[in-house]
Amino acid sequence: MKHEIDLSKYQAHTDLISETIDTISENTGYVKEEEHVEDVTIETITVDKQGEELIQKKSGVYKTLYFEDVTDEKNYKVVQTAFQKALQQVLQLEKIPKKASCLVVGLGNHNATPDALGPLAGEQVLVTRHLFQLGLEVDEKYRSVAVFIPGVMGTTGMETKDMILGIFNEIKPDFIIALDALAASHLERLNKTIQITNTGIHPGSGIGNHRSELSKDTLGVPVIAIGVPTVVDAVTIVSNTIDYLFEHISYEKENANQASIKFVSLMHRDYEEQEDNLTLQEKETVMGLVGKLSDEQIRQLISEVLRPLGYNLIVTPKDVNFVIEKLSKLLATGINKSLHAN
Amino acid sequence: MKHEIDLSKYQAHTDLISETIDTISENTGYVKEEEHVEDVTIETITVDKQGEELIQKKSGVYKTLYFEDVTDEKNYKVVQTAFQKALQQVLQLEKIPKKASCLVVGLGNHNATPDALGPLAGEQVLVTRHLFQLGLEVDEKYRSVAVFIPGVMGTTGMETKDMILGIFNEIKPDFIIALDALAASHLERLNKTIQITNTGIHPGSGIGNHRSELSKDTLGVPVIAIGVPTVVDAVTIVSNTIDYLFEHISYEKENANQASIKFVSLMHRDYEEQEDNLTLQEKETVMGLVGKLSDEQIRQLISEVLRPLGYNLIVTPKDVNFVIEKLSKLLATGINKSLHAN
Amino acid sequence: MKHEIDLSKYQAHTDLISETIDTISENTGYVKEEEHVEDVTIETITVDKQGEELIQKKSGVYKTLYFEDVTDEKNYKVVQTAFQKALQQVLQLEKIPKKASCLVVGLGNHNATPDALGPLAGEQVLVTRHLFQLGLEVDEKYRSVAVFIPGVMGTTGMETKDMILGIFNEIKPDFIIALDALAASHLERLNKTIQITNTGIHPGSGIGNHRSELSKDTLGVPVIAIGVPTVVDAVTIVSNTIDYLFEHISYEKENANQASIKFVSLMHRDYEEQEDNLTLQEKETVMGLVGKLSDEQIRQLISEVLRPLGYNLIVTPKDVNFVIEKLSKLLATGINKSLHAN
Amino acid sequence: MKHEIDLSKYQAHTDLISETIDTISENTGYVKEEEHVEDVTIETITVDKQGEELIQKKSGVYKTLYFEDVTDEKNYKVVQTAFQKALQQVLQLEKIPKKASCLVVGLGNHNATPDALGPLAGEQVLVTRHLFQLGLEVDEKYRSVAVFIPGVMGTTGMETKDMILGIFNEIKPDFIIALDALAASHLERLNKTIQITNTGIHPGSGIGNHRSELSKDTLGVPVIAIGVPTVVDAVTIVSNTIDYLFEHISYEKENANQASIKFVSLMHRDYEEQEDNLTLQEKETVMGLVGKLSDEQIRQLISEVLRPLGYNLIVTPKDVNFVIEKLSKLLATGINKSLHAN
Repeated sequence: MKHEIDLSKYQAHTDLISETIDTISENTGYVKEEEHVEDVTIETITVDKQGEELIQKKSGVYKTLYFEDVTDEKNYKVVQTAFQKALQQVLQLEKIPKKASCLVVGLGNHNATPDALGPLAGEQVLVTRHLFQLGLEVDEKYRSVAVFIPGVMGTTGMETKDMILGIFNEIKPDFIIALDALAASHLERLNKTIQITNTGIHPGSGIGNHRSELSKDTLGVPVIAIGVPTVVDAVTIVSNTIDYLFEHISYEKENANQASIKFVSLMHRDYEEQEDNLTLQEKETVMGLVGKLSDEQIRQLISEVLRPLGYNLIVTPKDVNFVIEKLSKLLATGINKSLHAN
Repeated sequence: MKHEIDLSKYQAHTDLISETIDTISENTGYVKEEEHVEDVTIETITVDKQGEELIQKKSGVYKTLYFEDVTDEKNYKVVQTAFQKALQQVLQLEKIPKKASCLVVGLGNHNATPDALGPLAGEQVLVTRHLFQLGLEVDEKYRSVAVFIPGVMGTTGMETKDMILGIFNEIKPDFIIALDALAASHLERLNKTIQITNTGIHPGSGIGNHRSELSKDTLGVPVIAIGVPTVVDAVTIVSNTIDYLFEHISYEKENANQASIKFVSLMHRDYEEQEDNLTLQEKETVMGLVGKLSDEQIRQLISEVLRPLGYNLIVTPKDVNFVIEKLSKLLATGINKSLHAN
Repeated sequence: MKHEIDLSKYQAHTDLISETIDTISENTGYVKEEEHVEDVTIETITVDKQGEELIQKKSGVYKTLYFEDVTDEKNYKVVQTAFQKALQQVLQLEKIPKKASCLVVGLGNHNATPDALGPLAGEQVLVTRHLFQLGLEVDEKYRSVAVFIPGVMGTTGMETKDMILGIFNEIKPDFIIALDALAASHLERLNKTIQITNTGIHPGSGIGNHRSELSKDTLGVPVIAIGVPTVVDAVTIVSNTIDYLFEHISYEKENANQASIKFVSLMHRDYEEQEDNLTLQEKETVMGLVGKLSDEQIRQLISEVLRPLGYNLIVTPKDVNFVIEKLSKLLATGINKSLHAN
Repeated sequence: MKHEIDLSKYQAHTDLISETIDTISENTGYVKEEEHVEDVTIETITVDKQGEELIQKKSGVYKTLYFEDVTDEKNYKVVQTAFQKALQQVLQLEKIPKKASCLVVGLGNHNATPDALGPLAGEQVLVTRHLFQLGLEVDEKYRSVAVFIPGVMGTTGMETKDMILGIFNEIKPDFIIALDALAASHLERLNKTIQITNTGIHPGSGIGNHRSELSKDTLGVPVIAIGVPTVVDAVTIVSNTIDYLFEHISYEKENANQASIKFVSLMHRDYEEQEDNLTLQEKETVMGLVGKLSDEQIRQLISEVLRPLGYNLIVTPKDVNFVIEKLSKLLATGINKSLHAN
């Protein structure tokens, strides 16, 4: 292993602060709270200025909803209610007045299913701005809402950030809500998490592309980002599998009173509750040299191994079209109910 | 008939200058030329400053292509070639340099088939601007092209003109090409005409909404508009039918040596070549009081008669989805070939 | 006017029995009843064997729902409830047992918006047959339902009737529900009527193509047809306009105490309540020779006048995509609630 | 490791005979030939009756095309030509007369992108059967072609096999061509392989579901299956990565003259040309206990490890919508050119 290689670029890419925090040892720089709406957990992480350095995430509030499948009708309603509650909390936190005008931005690629969440949700948002502009009489309960779906650079030739900026400068909304599909670094979060944050967006950015930030700092108005992890990359699934394998064996070791490390069939276990507590020696027994690598080194290895395929591979559930349809409707409904009085 | 009514608002709405000119008696203020590419006629109408007043159309160049069905593969290719030729003539007229950057705007409503021409054509335009922006090496033959598909006010809450202006201010293209579905006042032009003009666009405008003009006058760069009539309103079809009826009977009268006006079955006649040359007396015989009305009065009458239906009715061919698909491909191909060297 | 021409082929084509009955003078051969669900009228016409000859419609029960706009959310719910009630009445009339298996057929062309009603509604019907076939435990409230969307001959190369027959013979359902877009002969019925009948379907048929009938007579199981008029042809709109004109003038004559026939502007009048009671002489004054023609003669005349355009023109509301989306959801919801217990 | 477990169910699922043959040691029971069309390799595997038992694949001819990316326009044309040649070879082999009528079946799920290949290709096939049926004069060069797109059991409630059988019995075509997306067991084949076989299809089948076979044996007419691997399951990507890792290290060992096994960065290597030639001892060094497992045992392990996620995960390239669009057009074009004379 060449130690001169910069392993930081092999860190699992994640847009979820909850996953970022899982990988760091510090517990200063942020505060974490938790509440529950039936089976949905709403985790609130507040990062302070000091935390920006430590966690490498912009200071502000991040609300993460954890839930199970939204393709079940009953569960769908519970998640929708919880999402609405969390979004309203963020709106209140930002002190957004009842009649402040909103620009909703649906980020992503309409023609690539897992990335279509933003455009699909945006299309279902109730648009009212033109009614106010045309001087029509609008019911007291509505505020001014416009929707912009910019598309992606490959089909527009323009940076998404520039497009949003152009629209923003023209219509001057009081605040922005941006919807996007996110990348996760863990399979079990796929389509089962919503993140809401008041820290803005970085449309079209890779990691560290700070030029593209759209936030209260750069625009002068609140920019609330809502995202759902809908995709993990191929490196992640392999890397996750190795992690799960160690957890799996840890479980065996603890629960089965086994003298030696063995692979034993085990179904329906809940990974969440199992820590990987194997010694390095045990890991080497199970996975040889690979077992002794750090997470970053494993990702580097897998990246190199998969690179000759020349593919930009992603992992999604088989029924991704159906799941994205449900999630986009859920987000749009929650936004509509939060933005307009009932 | 109340003569105090302003009949001008009952003039047939048309976006085609060729139809406007047909309705006026003057032949000053503009120059009309014609050339042919196989079966396609390219008519060039150049309106001067004096003509603006007389014809009520902005001064500049209007090229109108007349052709038959583009759903036939062979015909499609001829029309595509002619369109490309006409577009290149307009680009040359505007002295647009080979490497000038272009913003293509696809106007209209993706979700209403006859109005989806602009978005569908825009989606098929070859986008290159991002390659230049990212500093990639781009083949000599390409210029910088971006595509913007704004949507319609009912789904965005924003005036289309404002959206285009926002994008324009952000990316500063050297010229704009706008694609749109047009309204015609004659059924026989439906999907069988392309109009190219250097006089700009009025997105989302009704007649006379001059605030919304996007043109060289307002933006400082050439704005070339390309349109195809894909829709006529319900009043038009009734009004056209009365016109056709008079032409029909004129033909009978001339060709059949008939002493009296009768309705005689006649198939496959070409309306284009038949003038309506009935006397007012003859028209009254055929159509009674209705026969004595002017075009505007007839349209007013039909408008009032149809109004209680409360419908915004349009007339399209049954296979509109298929025709629009062909036309959008034709426009995109012609634009791609005109903008980039071969 | 050549009197030897068979005018019957110029009768306005309509799939609605209510429109057929309006054009005939007899009132034997059928029984008409009416009930109301809030603002929705449900008209039940029962045609007997003797009526088949007189009305030229197959004997059986036809339920016609009359309603206003379903794009209004509140109205939508009322219509949905009324539709469900009417469908259940037909199911009871056919003595269809609670657990009888159903094949739902979505007729029409997915790629031509006004004709996409059947496929779009079919796609939203809850499918359960495979659960029973796979031997899974299915909740008591569900019955076996399969959905078949055959497409149209132009894209399959097969007669729709043959395709349905092939599927029917293979899966042997206890009854069939077929969904289709219909043609109307009056503009005011467009998207504002649902017809339910137990007399079967004639997929892909023109008038009088009896070979294509799929009904209890030909299949041995009940075939319930549900349709909505979503389209009228171009001849209809012109012909309707002439009718409206006469009604318009009749109204003027009666209400305005006018000595002579004049065209007077009149808004927001309800056509439904106005009869055309002009004398032939008055009609000639208004419309000349055209005024003296019968309905069939007028349609023949308009057909000939429009024929050289070579177009198969249809008339739809501008927002047809949106209306069809609502109607298809309404039909699917009503069917789902009628077929499965709640 | 419990040795009593039936490991056969953990064999990598593949629909490609080329992958099946790679996993077996025998080279009796089949003959393999190869030809080239520019950069495309066409491999022909002919399985005899004896081979059925050994390879567990139906006897008959399997043609496999290997190619690179079809999103490149030039490459697309080469692959299209090669596909057309291979298909025509199979048609000749089956002695299908020039005028024999064909039913094209587009298998798969329109609403799940990687599985939409069959429906999308089917939609682009030129349909002519109705022209012959209607007694129209059809140009000598065309044969009768119908297209059936059955959908999937989850949306129809019917077994796909039953639906095809129903249509087949009704229209009695002389032969069938079925199009489908396949599963592969190796990532590098994804969207870069076409398989054509005269051995029929097993729609909706898992492995070994022989009831669902549609072939010359069961229908009495040739059934030609055309498929492209568009998806691999999540287990495959992890398992493949381990294989690649061993190949990677084998390469290091051979080429880098290294005394000990190390992980060395290596880009752009071609996996195809590298065998895994590590000893079991070396594999244990690299991957510990995992390194000593057989392929089936590794898949079992990964399956168990991933199972608690409850997900039916698939791996696709990010631009899957675009690739599937290109591939479906390629298949349809090749079929159209093969079925009709030029």
